[in-house]
Amino acid sequence: MSERSLITALKGLFGDDRGRDGRLLRGIGDDAAVVRAGAYAVTSVDAMVDGVHFRTGQHGTTLADIGHRALAGALSDLAAMGARPGEVYVALGAPPGFTVDDGLQVMGGMRDLCEQVGDVVVAGGDVTRAPALLLCVTVVGWADDQDALLTRDRARPGDRIGVTGPLGAAAAGLALLEDRVDADACGLPEAVADALRLAHRRPRPRVEAGRALASAEIRAGIDLSDGLATDAAHLARASGVRLHIDPGALPVAGGVAEVAAALEVPAHELAATGGEDYELCVCVAPGRVREAERAGVAAWIGRVGPADPEAGVTFTGARSHLTGFEHRLGD
Amino acid sequence: MSERSLITALKGLFGDDRGRDGRLLRGIGDDAAVVRAGAYAVTSVDAMVDGVHFRTGQHGTTLADIGHRALAGALSDLAAMGARPGEVYVALGAPPGFTVDDGLQVMGGMRDLCEQVGDVVVAGGDVTRAPALLLCVTVVGWADDQDALLTRDRARPGDRIGVTGPLGAAAAGLALLEDRVDADACGLPEAVADALRLAHRRPRPRVEAGRALASAEIRAGIDLSDGLATDAAHLARASGVRLHIDPGALPVAGGVAEVAAALEVPAHELAATGGEDYELCVCVAPGRVREAERAGVAAWIGRVGPADPEAGVTFTGARSHLTGFEHRLGD
Repeated sequence: MSERSLITALKGLFGDDRGRDGRLLRGIGDDAAVVRAGAYAVTSVDAMVDGVHFRTGQHGTTLADIGHRALAGALSDLAAMGARPGEVYVALGAPPGFTVDDGLQVMGGMRDLCEQVGDVVVAGGDVTRAPALLLCVTVVGWADDQDALLTRDRARPGDRIGVTGPLGAAAAGLALLEDRVDADACGLPEAVADALRLAHRRPRPRVEAGRALASAEIRAGIDLSDGLATDAAHLARASGVRLHIDPGALPVAGGVAEVAAALEVPAHELAATGGEDYELCVCVAPGRVREAERAGVAAWIGRVGPADPEAGVTFTGARSHLTGFEHRLGD
Repeated sequence: MSERSLITALKGLFGDDRGRDGRLLRGIGDDAAVVRAGAYAVTSVDAMVDGVHFRTGQHGTTLADIGHRALAGALSDLAAMGARPGEVYVALGAPPGFTVDDGLQVMGGMRDLCEQVGDVVVAGGDVTRAPALLLCVTVVGWADDQDALLTRDRARPGDRIGVTGPLGAAAAGLALLEDRVDADACGLPEAVADALRLAHRRPRPRVEAGRALASAEIRAGIDLSDGLATDAAHLARASGVRLHIDPGALPVAGGVAEVAAALEVPAHELAATGGEDYELCVCVAPGRVREAERAGVAAWIGRVGPADPEAGVTFTGARSHLTGFEHRLGD
């Protein structure tokens, strides 16, 4: 594959999309892309590498899945900020034997997610040879008001902790995809097993919920890319507080209990530690609970304790079912 | 090396810089960076991979050189547009054995270039494991007026073709670094040889010249990253014209003639085909020649011919010295 032939093919795939109000003034083909800007740019970069973040050709993972997942991870960062997603820039490292059609499949997975999210434009990027397939995705979102964003550092004592949807599906799906768990043997209906696999293969960044929460004046949030236990600790440290989370209150996705049982871990543990669910976790002042629910909070899972120099997360309640759980979650 | 330990170290290196007027509102540490935007965002992505674009540890190339070169390539794209550079986002793929100190050296090379260019801020990025050192650099620049940018598609018949500085230094420097040419044997003073090596190790993106040219209402330009022959052809195709370039008029950097002689190629060929000089090539209406010279054009090297469906570059003059040269430059 020549780099130029893939770039030409990608121009065909993306070259006509100019975005809302034609804001993309120059896309693929000049030295740089030119975009009519909003008031504030919100930018995140996510790199995914074959053998580290995914394995090509294993467990039914397609190249389109890989493209989807790389973009989903980056868009989820914009969701976590409550920004309006705008442009996507992709550096694609092509390993030996990689074809133009392979490149179109990867980027087709990204294009489909752009269409699902709505008004997200692939505006540019780079193609290079590489020892392994790598995707470096830069997403730029826009905001009209810098204060109307979700950030990690604004959780306040007394806030309630909410999440936007059920947890554990992507981790359970990965266990099924990797054949660590047999769906039939643990009595999982095929449709439920497929939904879990899809949750891993095609995670959905919660862009709309993020924007709705920011509009509802919710100010503290993070996306659950590494799992609630890890990500909530980031939020706790940035805000200088301790989060008290009740494992029994975690919303567990359908089928996760069966997969967790087969893996011999408590369902709540799989829900708390499994990554790539991409739900949002927010901290909400008691007076704004109703607004947060309307904006997308699906479950309340705990409460923010007093300011604490040793910021972090404490999992409380249902201790007897979670031997060693709290310890393993410590960082 | 843990990814988090490098991120913490990078926060120390870059965490305090908020840019001109504090425009970087949130940098490393949240889900995404937040920047007060200009009217138009100009964005480019450049990926560099060990073994493809550079080789770690060979020919005296340091990790700081590699960081510098990766950023220089991306900033040169902004120079080519005449944009004001703003923020840099870096995805760093760390190979086995890579240490936090290695990461700081790479990023230190970038920081030094940021300082040279002035008011460029490293605002975020990603760190991941990878099979080889990889750097994916996204640069965002800003412009107040979308028409006051240099683009590839606005060369017009009758324009004069100019370049902002001497060519061939980086290619000659690489030949010296790779010991394909011996500086002493070809009678090169050590200071000249060092300057050539430095031209390869620490190329200087022509950001100021790009902005000055755009301000001087020059409208067609490209940066010379792949070499004049290749890059001028991009410009020709985007504008639908044929460029006529006189090889005898190319400004050749000091010492390039000696290295070219040792390599047994004409000096003008090394100047026309050697990449990574990062000078700018612009096309200028005859009435604006004086303004272009004031803005940074150092030499006039040819003229734009009539509109031509078979757009491209013709090297004219001095033919006898360049047997086969024109053919090899055809795409």
